[in-house]
Amino acid sequence: MSTDILPSYLAGTWQTGTGEGREVADAVTGETVTRVSSDGLDLGAAVDHARTTGWNALAELTFPERAGALKAAALALQERRQELYDLSARAGCTRADAKVDVDGGFGTALVYASLGRKGLPDGTVVVEDDPVPLGKQGTFAGQHILTTPRGIAVQVNAFNFPVWGMLEKLAPALLAGVPTLVKPATPTAYVAEHAVRIMVESGALPEGSLQLVCGGVDGLFDLLGGQDHVGFTGSASTAARLRSDPAVTERSTHFNAEADSLNFSALGPDATPGQPEFDLFVQALVTEMSVKAGQKCTAIRRAFVPRGQLDAVTEAVEAALDALVVGAPGAEGVTMGALVGRSQRDDVRTAAGRLGQAGRLVFGDPDTVAVTGADADRGAFLSPLLFRADDTTRSEPHEVEAFGPVSTVMPYDDVPDLLSLVARGRGSLAGSVVSHDGGFVRDVVLGAAAHHGRVLVLDRDAAAESTGHGTPMPQLVHGGPGRAGGGQEEGGLRAVYAHLQRTAVQGSPAVLAAVTGGAPQP
Amino acid sequence: MSTDILPSYLAGTWQTGTGEGREVADAVTGETVTRVSSDGLDLGAAVDHARTTGWNALAELTFPERAGALKAAALALQERRQELYDLSARAGCTRADAKVDVDGGFGTALVYASLGRKGLPDGTVVVEDDPVPLGKQGTFAGQHILTTPRGIAVQVNAFNFPVWGMLEKLAPALLAGVPTLVKPATPTAYVAEHAVRIMVESGALPEGSLQLVCGGVDGLFDLLGGQDHVGFTGSASTAARLRSDPAVTERSTHFNAEADSLNFSALGPDATPGQPEFDLFVQALVTEMSVKAGQKCTAIRRAFVPRGQLDAVTEAVEAALDALVVGAPGAEGVTMGALVGRSQRDDVRTAAGRLGQAGRLVFGDPDTVAVTGADADRGAFLSPLLFRADDTTRSEPHEVEAFGPVSTVMPYDDVPDLLSLVARGRGSLAGSVVSHDGGFVRDVVLGAAAHHGRVLVLDRDAAAESTGHGTPMPQLVHGGPGRAGGGQEEGGLRAVYAHLQRTAVQGSPAVLAAVTGGAPQP
Repeated sequence: MSTDILPSYLAGTWQTGTGEGREVADAVTGETVTRVSSDGLDLGAAVDHARTTGWNALAELTFPERAGALKAAALALQERRQELYDLSARAGCTRADAKVDVDGGFGTALVYASLGRKGLPDGTVVVEDDPVPLGKQGTFAGQHILTTPRGIAVQVNAFNFPVWGMLEKLAPALLAGVPTLVKPATPTAYVAEHAVRIMVESGALPEGSLQLVCGGVDGLFDLLGGQDHVGFTGSASTAARLRSDPAVTERSTHFNAEADSLNFSALGPDATPGQPEFDLFVQALVTEMSVKAGQKCTAIRRAFVPRGQLDAVTEAVEAALDALVVGAPGAEGVTMGALVGRSQRDDVRTAAGRLGQAGRLVFGDPDTVAVTGADADRGAFLSPLLFRADDTTRSEPHEVEAFGPVSTVMPYDDVPDLLSLVARGRGSLAGSVVSHDGGFVRDVVLGAAAHHGRVLVLDRDAAAESTGHGTPMPQLVHGGPGRAGGGQEEGGLRAVYAHLQRTAVQGSPAVLAAVTGGAPQP
Repeated sequence: MSTDILPSYLAGTWQTGTGEGREVADAVTGETVTRVSSDGLDLGAAVDHARTTGWNALAELTFPERAGALKAAALALQERRQELYDLSARAGCTRADAKVDVDGGFGTALVYASLGRKGLPDGTVVVEDDPVPLGKQGTFAGQHILTTPRGIAVQVNAFNFPVWGMLEKLAPALLAGVPTLVKPATPTAYVAEHAVRIMVESGALPEGSLQLVCGGVDGLFDLLGGQDHVGFTGSASTAARLRSDPAVTERSTHFNAEADSLNFSALGPDATPGQPEFDLFVQALVTEMSVKAGQKCTAIRRAFVPRGQLDAVTEAVEAALDALVVGAPGAEGVTMGALVGRSQRDDVRTAAGRLGQAGRLVFGDPDTVAVTGADADRGAFLSPLLFRADDTTRSEPHEVEAFGPVSTVMPYDDVPDLLSLVARGRGSLAGSVVSHDGGFVRDVVLGAAAHHGRVLVLDRDAAAESTGHGTPMPQLVHGGPGRAGGGQEEGGLRAVYAHLQRTAVQGSPAVLAAVTGGAPQP
């Protein structure tokens, strides 16, 4: 790959921004991978292209036909996944990390293709319910339909999952008939660009249904209105800024945010050392700290354990962390890669410094790490960092997210104490309960539910098939209240419906049958 | 009623703000009805009261028990409805107008009570779906539950429906177990206050589940977070201001807006003079202009008719408007009351002036109206005003809402032209199609659906039982995209679910059964 400006795919052609662009460095070697600029690109033309060419092309396809297009695009990605693994390694990803993103991405698209084929009607309108009678003679009733808005989807993605993050938004929008404009995060835009290139080259998707802009999107929101949809994943501060835009506040552009959060995992009092759940808890925590070098919105940031087990858990986690090998993806024995870049590492070190004010560092050194197969000075490597905060009244562990291989272990006294600590995260994407005690599990799940989009229970019965704390599933909602952004993605067909406009239709039974009996004229 | 400060009901007691307050005048006589001030009231204590006393009391009730409390409150309002009719008359409402608000209000609450009793489980948790298998061995699955957030509902209502507007928000919040703080619009706060008083005196609702603050709510949003819910009805500009608050943008407080819109009604080409639909169209337009003196978010602002029928329709509407009698509610023969106040009338006159730039006034005089039973100089009376805009390219009829007895008749050429005109409203609450031509109806409904929360079809078959263009139904969604606020209320149990947090729970089948099998421990 040269260090030319990374192309964008707009209005049916690959185009390149002007100027110097922003340099993106290899996470492992520090070499320049590419430069990113959208200067001079015509976003207005791209929006028009989506509204006309893209929208009309999708409107001509039924839901199952769109599902077929999505499936073909996903299979193209699957076929060429090795190219994406290789690029992902430059972003610091081990093969396992890359699979989470790449296989997770086309896998999610394939699930959506299946849902679209099996769960949506052979047409372009979803009839949501049976007619509700609104009169005693049966001459007047109401019924809800879902139709495609006359708008586009702008998808602003995070750097950590350039493929999965794109596809989990693209898939439901595509099924809904809404053309997409993707704006990837700059540090991994070259991975997203290649994934889009594969899909474009496959010819699977109708022209105009997928566009890509690498770089800034100044002025884009000025073009959005009440029929448009913005899907955002990233920091809470950026979410707040975008949500304050007049497009959202004045023109009611739909805005869905999925933001970082202080996800918890709780060990049950029953899960003493020797019990399977004790080991499952330790293993899950270490996995969440090390996969993607902890750069996951869903990673466990707060590990709550019964006060009496604090020493035992901490020691077991330390031992497991000690077995990790940090280094270049692909190098012999490496089990944890690099952060996406050195500035990201700076941010994590700063956050870790704040966490250190609330507890003590029991594993790792923010400034030094042994690195295998790479130069520790040039790559964005960081040791896993485990904090232990015996004083749970401190605010930092509940407020400061170090977006890297960083977690804090804290004690709790009983279920009310635990639920109170959980709530101090002010809303999270995911929580987990590790216990084989049905009563404890039930109390914690129901008590924590209001603060979470997803709660996973891990025990000996489910462990072999469990998809894990940090893994969103296309069939289940992904998102969370409060700090996590207050949005909702995936959840099976819910994400498709969220892109459609619900309308109550009222009239005679004959009228309702005529309206819901088929598709609109394109 | 004296001209003391109107009381608020906060933290279990009736309290009165300090200072002079804002004067509210009788819409008919111009006399002072009351004064409104929240100065000195402790909103922080009210929020705490809701979060503790109110939340805990509701948490102890199952969904059916909450439905029972709601029903009792609604029946208390029904029993004392005459008191509310009498107060409503001071706001300019005829008896028919008052019934729309008062009977519509307790009627909506009764429908919700029925839905809550029949459609929600005998517990406090909604289990939304069957377990979704997430492994081949059947040891791991996911399932969605809906639980009560640890928050409150702040409901900011519009002046035009002080009773219905309050109850259509209160009912679903109450069923969801979310305590409510109502902030009525100042011009009709005295009607809302009396409705709350009736409900409080009935003892039907758990203490803390309903509070009322009459006057400003400065600082209130600072107390809201990601578990809280704001329901807003009113102007688009106020919606935009509230939606820009950091509570919404930074802390993800749920925000649902229902704003004024430029609702349309379209006459079909088949509905020539002599056809039943011709008369139904004229009648519906005149009804929407005169009920509540046109102060309805759903009223028809844009009446589209086939170009060839423009003269005939305009003449028929003029004749029907000419038969209206404007005057004091209750006075002999009066069929249309007053606007809520003289400043509201000033606003309508200003907006009518702008509409007059795009078309000509064919009925009424903004400055003069014959008034029965009242002094035209003291009351906020206004003539119905019908505009005819032959040039549909002008922007005003699609953008300027005169929130009173004002509509514009415009021609269209064919279905694509009609749909293009419809879309220029940029999102509306309600539309209607008046035609007996199934193909026309289908094309217009499906083409207009994406811009509307509700579309009504009116024809000879449904007319006798039709609930009308402007009437939201509790069973059907109320709200619309874009200019209409992008929100959604009512829609049966959807509004209850919208107050609950959806959480995906993952675990073994035994765990899912344990979690979904019952209610959380309070």
